[in-house]
Amino acid sequence: MSGKSVGILFDRVRWEEKELGRQLEIRGVPYDMIDAKSQVLALDKTLFTTVPGRILVRCVSFYRGLNASSVYEAHGIETINSSKILDICGNKLLTSQLLAKNGVPTPKTIVSFSPEGAMQAVEEIGFPCVMKPIIGSWGRQVVPIRDRETAEAFIEMREQLNDSMHTIFYIQEMINRPPRDIRCIAVGDEIVASVYRYAPPENWKTNVALGGHSEPCKVTSELEETILKTVSVVGAGVLGIDLMERSSSEFVVHEVNGTVEFKGAQTVTSNSIAGRIADYLISKRNREETQSVKA
Amino acid sequence: MSGKSVGILFDRVRWEEKELGRQLEIRGVPYDMIDAKSQVLALDKTLFTTVPGRILVRCVSFYRGLNASSVYEAHGIETINSSKILDICGNKLLTSQLLAKNGVPTPKTIVSFSPEGAMQAVEEIGFPCVMKPIIGSWGRQVVPIRDRETAEAFIEMREQLNDSMHTIFYIQEMINRPPRDIRCIAVGDEIVASVYRYAPPENWKTNVALGGHSEPCKVTSELEETILKTVSVVGAGVLGIDLMERSSSEFVVHEVNGTVEFKGAQTVTSNSIAGRIADYLISKRNREETQSVKA
Amino acid sequence: MSGKSVGILFDRVRWEEKELGRQLEIRGVPYDMIDAKSQVLALDKTLFTTVPGRILVRCVSFYRGLNASSVYEAHGIETINSSKILDICGNKLLTSQLLAKNGVPTPKTIVSFSPEGAMQAVEEIGFPCVMKPIIGSWGRQVVPIRDRETAEAFIEMREQLNDSMHTIFYIQEMINRPPRDIRCIAVGDEIVASVYRYAPPENWKTNVALGGHSEPCKVTSELEETILKTVSVVGAGVLGIDLMERSSSEFVVHEVNGTVEFKGAQTVTSNSIAGRIADYLISKRNREETQSVKA
Amino acid sequence: MSGKSVGILFDRVRWEEKELGRQLEIRGVPYDMIDAKSQVLALDKTLFTTVPGRILVRCVSFYRGLNASSVYEAHGIETINSSKILDICGNKLLTSQLLAKNGVPTPKTIVSFSPEGAMQAVEEIGFPCVMKPIIGSWGRQVVPIRDRETAEAFIEMREQLNDSMHTIFYIQEMINRPPRDIRCIAVGDEIVASVYRYAPPENWKTNVALGGHSEPCKVTSELEETILKTVSVVGAGVLGIDLMERSSSEFVVHEVNGTVEFKGAQTVTSNSIAGRIADYLISKRNREETQSVKA
Repeated sequence: MSGKSVGILFDRVRWEEKELGRQLEIRGVPYDMIDAKSQVLALDKTLFTTVPGRILVRCVSFYRGLNASSVYEAHGIETINSSKILDICGNKLLTSQLLAKNGVPTPKTIVSFSPEGAMQAVEEIGFPCVMKPIIGSWGRQVVPIRDRETAEAFIEMREQLNDSMHTIFYIQEMINRPPRDIRCIAVGDEIVASVYRYAPPENWKTNVALGGHSEPCKVTSELEETILKTVSVVGAGVLGIDLMERSSSEFVVHEVNGTVEFKGAQTVTSNSIAGRIADYLISKRNREETQSVKA
Repeated sequence: MSGKSVGILFDRVRWEEKELGRQLEIRGVPYDMIDAKSQVLALDKTLFTTVPGRILVRCVSFYRGLNASSVYEAHGIETINSSKILDICGNKLLTSQLLAKNGVPTPKTIVSFSPEGAMQAVEEIGFPCVMKPIIGSWGRQVVPIRDRETAEAFIEMREQLNDSMHTIFYIQEMINRPPRDIRCIAVGDEIVASVYRYAPPENWKTNVALGGHSEPCKVTSELEETILKTVSVVGAGVLGIDLMERSSSEFVVHEVNGTVEFKGAQTVTSNSIAGRIADYLISKRNREETQSVKA
Repeated sequence: MSGKSVGILFDRVRWEEKELGRQLEIRGVPYDMIDAKSQVLALDKTLFTTVPGRILVRCVSFYRGLNASSVYEAHGIETINSSKILDICGNKLLTSQLLAKNGVPTPKTIVSFSPEGAMQAVEEIGFPCVMKPIIGSWGRQVVPIRDRETAEAFIEMREQLNDSMHTIFYIQEMINRPPRDIRCIAVGDEIVASVYRYAPPENWKTNVALGGHSEPCKVTSELEETILKTVSVVGAGVLGIDLMERSSSEFVVHEVNGTVEFKGAQTVTSNSIAGRIADYLISKRNREETQSVKA
Repeated sequence: MSGKSVGILFDRVRWEEKELGRQLEIRGVPYDMIDAKSQVLALDKTLFTTVPGRILVRCVSFYRGLNASSVYEAHGIETINSSKILDICGNKLLTSQLLAKNGVPTPKTIVSFSPEGAMQAVEEIGFPCVMKPIIGSWGRQVVPIRDRETAEAFIEMREQLNDSMHTIFYIQEMINRPPRDIRCIAVGDEIVASVYRYAPPENWKTNVALGGHSEPCKVTSELEETILKTVSVVGAGVLGIDLMERSSSEFVVHEVNGTVEFKGAQTVTSNSIAGRIADYLISKRNREETQSVKA
């Protein structure tokens, strides 16, 4: 185990993982591509496989990434993001609550723990509103609720999905926004990309994976302030912060991604996002080495 | 909202919840039985329902209890156990890792993130071993693995359970123990009950819910030391600590319950366990009030 | 095993099962209440438990009832309904297709085998329409679709329910009907009850289990004709036929229940429905005995 | 819609589907590759898409293939296999029962409808035995049971898989066989391939998909008799019949596949299996045309 090298923990190699490797290579930094599915980790003393001193967690599976990072941390290996940040970002209830509590603008959200409670939450928020699973990516199972009848049907289906989270209902106001949202990528406390994501025609969701497209988005001072406040509340790392425009100068953060995809954002960003993440990994290493020298 | 009263958050009223209410009543403490299924909680500023200043979380559903306690805490309400303790106790990977890291004796455990990795973990631990889901109660899906063929079948079924945790495999050595385990209930840093739980005839598991029976267990100094170390590592609250005897004087902790059932233990314990928990809730309140007065 | 006695196969004892037993008793017919969960049935030669010569299948679980009836039939025991009728009634695709093919009025229905196909089916039917799971009771997961956005959300959730049927999408026109449907109970080729079922206030579904109420419904000649045609197509047995009124004299059959609940219908029916079912079981027995005597 | 052309209904294009297309092409027969996922089928009168007069069903998803074939048949299109054969072959309970009832040698099998019943079935069969899901391919969730403790763990996991079939338990004797089984492919009433399938080293299952290998198997008169009896019981079509050797001259049929994979078998068979299937489709067409001419 070496404190100098860097690992990229993955369970699927997407464009982002390849690009991250390429940028580390360009910078002459030795790195390991670590397939999470091959990891066999003893909890007690030593890890079976030799692992680097710093690991960038890029697992598609939230639970795999979160639990793997917990084990690495317990063995003294730094993970980026930390398991704490991964936990917050992976659970929309935790994200929303942390933002709301700390005064970061975020959509009004009510949680409840039964179908009946969910219906009350819908009535409290009013129509239209949105129901989301608290764990999940790519807008999956995020549904628009426009009337009571549809609310009942969605709540019933949610209940019957019968995953481990099926007792938790998360209901959110629907922001009256332009047909786009904003994704900002913050690495440490720097904003390295900021793009509009437009919904595909006839679609309500803006996820690029669903066929939307990206355009550059100017980082105004209001936007910057909201982003930096989010970083300070969630913790610095590699974050994909998603915002909606309540008005031209008012932004609400609705999601923070702990293992952010940035292929779409890269198409309209001149800086290499992967390059900035690589620089961040290196600077953390250098800082640490300097500290070791001092100590 | 009042800092003086106490709430019991439940989703099913078992014997324990009734007894806890009865003991608070005997002590003249006003309390609310709060059905988690009726809670409709706004994340931003105020909770919809008036809630007590201190809540004992007794939800059967782990995710419901954990997420509800997070929301309460964010609104300044103390929960017992804290969401942090609930999270650690509810996830066997986190429990085992914390115990192992801090030198509390615990069975050797390996985690992996794919069926192939699970098979390697089984081979590393050796036969017989045990596979457990990291989230789950009452010994459900805890399976004994005695040969390679059975291991493959269990790993395949585990994979196909397809719950959100199905990418995480937790393999543990099987302790060669007498046909019983020990459950100790620690309230704050006091051991209020200690019982042997015997497996029902022809059964491998010791859960009382499965038909086993309880007998008193003397708290030796070795046992006490292990319990108190566990409390200091996991955090003080209301904990059900389950141990196995590797030898007559060596105990290993294999599980810590954050919402412990104690009906079986009560049958062979002279003190009222619910009473001691009630006292703990009251003492926390008093301590806090004293601090308020000082401040 | 005796050809004279009668069995009631159940997995939950509801009001209906008790009433059926009571009516058989009144008629002096020996009968067995058979808990499907206790049945251990060898496929090869003999059944382990002694079973009656004729079994009324009343299982709540469709698959349990269907598969149990197949086994009984293979051993020469008559089941009512037959496994063939249970299969047709339990699968809405089979029911609809059989009705449509044989000219029984039924709502326009399109099936497809992927989310994309489901969206095309929705567009072909037009808004509003209804999506139903092909297997399922009590209106569960039956959802109204009023616009494209909601359609996409429902189709996505349906896909992710990930039950074994999740690759099959069943889309049906929404009949512009009064806020009620009609349930007729046909025993053999006799209509023994006919009631309106009114949806509870603010609810779209008419299921009595959801809180609706029943009122008597006159059996007009048009209604009778539709019912009898349905019986001749599906097969005679104990059937709960559900219809909607497209106009005052035009009825469409949207569902046929193979293990019908009739507690609600009984409240507004003077004849004993259970009594008529009991008579049917007895008459079948007598007919058979007469045939045996002849042969 | 034309009675002359042939369709291959698929949901995934494997080697087999490509080879079937190639063999039809060689024979100059026009054919359509029909993606089941693109089918949008009205139940009432006309199919939306133009479909051939005869369809070979090759869907990987059992429910998709079965329900699609039902719809085609209701519209007068012949499917091979018929929906009836697909239903029998797809459900091991139906297969076993039909074989047992008609005197085809098959392993002793007991079904039950609850975990308690499953345990009784295991005790009745004795150890070792096998538990299988009644719906499912590739040996998935087929588990060996060698002792009571393992039985309980498997039964509990099976129950918690919570698929729609989780109330049905199918327990079968384990045949003391060589480390191989026999797959025979019967097209109409002809045996077009017969191969041994050897389990991969250290594996109990013989599925080629799991890494086993094939070797030619001589069709003795005993084997032939068993195969032809199976065909007459299940119905003629394209069947993959799997047998085990109880002794050198005694074969038991344990599974019949309605959408058989034959890539492994082809590697050790000189005839083209796909070619023989193509010939069968053509001969059916010719026979029908001849009949039309006569009529």
